[in-house]
Amino acid sequence: MNIGLVGVGRMGANMARRLKDRGFHVTTVFDLNRAAATSLAQELGCAASPTLGDLSAGADVVFTIVTDDAAMREIFTGADNLLASAQGKLFINCATVSPGIHVEVERLAEAAGAASLEACMASSITQAREGSLYLMCGGREENFRRAEPILKELSASLRYIGKSGEAAKVKAVVNMVMNINTAGLAEGLGLGEALGLNLTMLREVFSQTGAASRVLQTDGEDMQNRDHACFFSAAHAAKDSGIALQLAEDNGLDLPLTRETKTQYDRMVASGFGDLDKSGIAELTFKARLTEQSGP
Amino acid sequence: MNIGLVGVGRMGANMARRLKDRGFHVTTVFDLNRAAATSLAQELGCAASPTLGDLSAGADVVFTIVTDDAAMREIFTGADNLLASAQGKLFINCATVSPGIHVEVERLAEAAGAASLEACMASSITQAREGSLYLMCGGREENFRRAEPILKELSASLRYIGKSGEAAKVKAVVNMVMNINTAGLAEGLGLGEALGLNLTMLREVFSQTGAASRVLQTDGEDMQNRDHACFFSAAHAAKDSGIALQLAEDNGLDLPLTRETKTQYDRMVASGFGDLDKSGIAELTFKARLTEQSGP
Repeated sequence: MNIGLVGVGRMGANMARRLKDRGFHVTTVFDLNRAAATSLAQELGCAASPTLGDLSAGADVVFTIVTDDAAMREIFTGADNLLASAQGKLFINCATVSPGIHVEVERLAEAAGAASLEACMASSITQAREGSLYLMCGGREENFRRAEPILKELSASLRYIGKSGEAAKVKAVVNMVMNINTAGLAEGLGLGEALGLNLTMLREVFSQTGAASRVLQTDGEDMQNRDHACFFSAAHAAKDSGIALQLAEDNGLDLPLTRETKTQYDRMVASGFGDLDKSGIAELTFKARLTEQSGP
Repeated sequence: MNIGLVGVGRMGANMARRLKDRGFHVTTVFDLNRAAATSLAQELGCAASPTLGDLSAGADVVFTIVTDDAAMREIFTGADNLLASAQGKLFINCATVSPGIHVEVERLAEAAGAASLEACMASSITQAREGSLYLMCGGREENFRRAEPILKELSASLRYIGKSGEAAKVKAVVNMVMNINTAGLAEGLGLGEALGLNLTMLREVFSQTGAASRVLQTDGEDMQNRDHACFFSAAHAAKDSGIALQLAEDNGLDLPLTRETKTQYDRMVASGFGDLDKSGIAELTFKARLTEQSGP
């Protein structure tokens, strides 16, 4: 079985490395950034396909992990696309995009005689490399069963959520709540600093009380120390909260914290800090930082 | 040593019960609600003081747990107050009020020859009854040492934070973050419901991902099941987020999630649902609930 990869960012590259480690044949990779694709291909000892059509033609299973809905639509419907000669192929789509685009891609893939599955990841680059991703899948169950032997090697937790779009919905809501908790933590630590509290003590108290959260563990110290090396970027956070906000609007729900969280991450992107880790939101809520001209 | 109690709400009453269980002499209680004070006094086999002055005169140590800053100021400076004959007494103030009022009360108590300590509780009525409160103290360390043997019997975790007002600052920030996480969780579950997701599954995914939090454990199921029996009321949440928001404004910080969280809890209070548990905020974010005329 030949595996192709579309999108050689850090997540995709680490997934390919992991699959190779586990004995799978990652035979071709593609990225609009040709240099990045060539570099990863050299590392993995595989081909860097010049086109999506080539990649698809040479692979049995294709992982895709692209930026957003527009990129997702482009790789499946653009002038050069994955579906030109796709009979029998399985596309496993890992990007965090809207539920609607997954449904659309499934329909397009099936019209081309292929199959698609959404595999939404609630984890980051370290887990991708170690094969310990938290993976939630949506699509036809038969496609999930077909992908399962590969996905098991990438994940510590693998679950089938339901039909196409359902896993993306769960992912959107998970990231929306994670982003709110992150933005709230940044406000708490920012206020603590303004009040002259010892932030190490404050984080410890948070961890023992109703203020405890997973993001406190993953981002609290980084917020205090301004260590915003990127695991999950502010730009991604803005996009993901935006997906959730759109879903809320589509359903007539007003979600004020989701809205304000998106606004904060949009502010980071607009200020040129979209590439910082999501913990960088603390740069907006610490008084001493706000007054600085330069970034962290 | 005679112990007095001002404020016989569920927290105060449970603290008194616990102290009695542990062999302390709770000799007098006071509440503006005379019936409640008399009822607790009968249960404990102690006196219900007719005035604050009487209570203070007969006690060595006085616990106070009142509603807000105004009530706190009233019991220490009103026509009938605790400081009329307070030489040598120790006041242990447990209400969640602003840091400033604790500093003010310390000054007043010392001018009357008495001592005061703030003992801020990051836990709820069950922990008060079981003596497993999370207690954070502010004030002179000598007063903390004097109170320590009593406070140890009330708490599972007891820590001295610093001078007067400091524990109240930590408490304000803890509850502010807790309330944000609660409001965010309510948005996530509300959106999940609107999207037709299985909420039991969604909560499980939350618990395993970046959306995990302490309030997910304490409030998630209650939000799903509309079980808003009160452990920590929406009205308290509104007040506490308000304290934090005021501290932020005093320090020139704009904290949008704190602001929106306070607005949501204010909406609950204005709608007559201030006595629901803080989990009741989900009543605002679940679509099917919003359209109902009656409350949960």
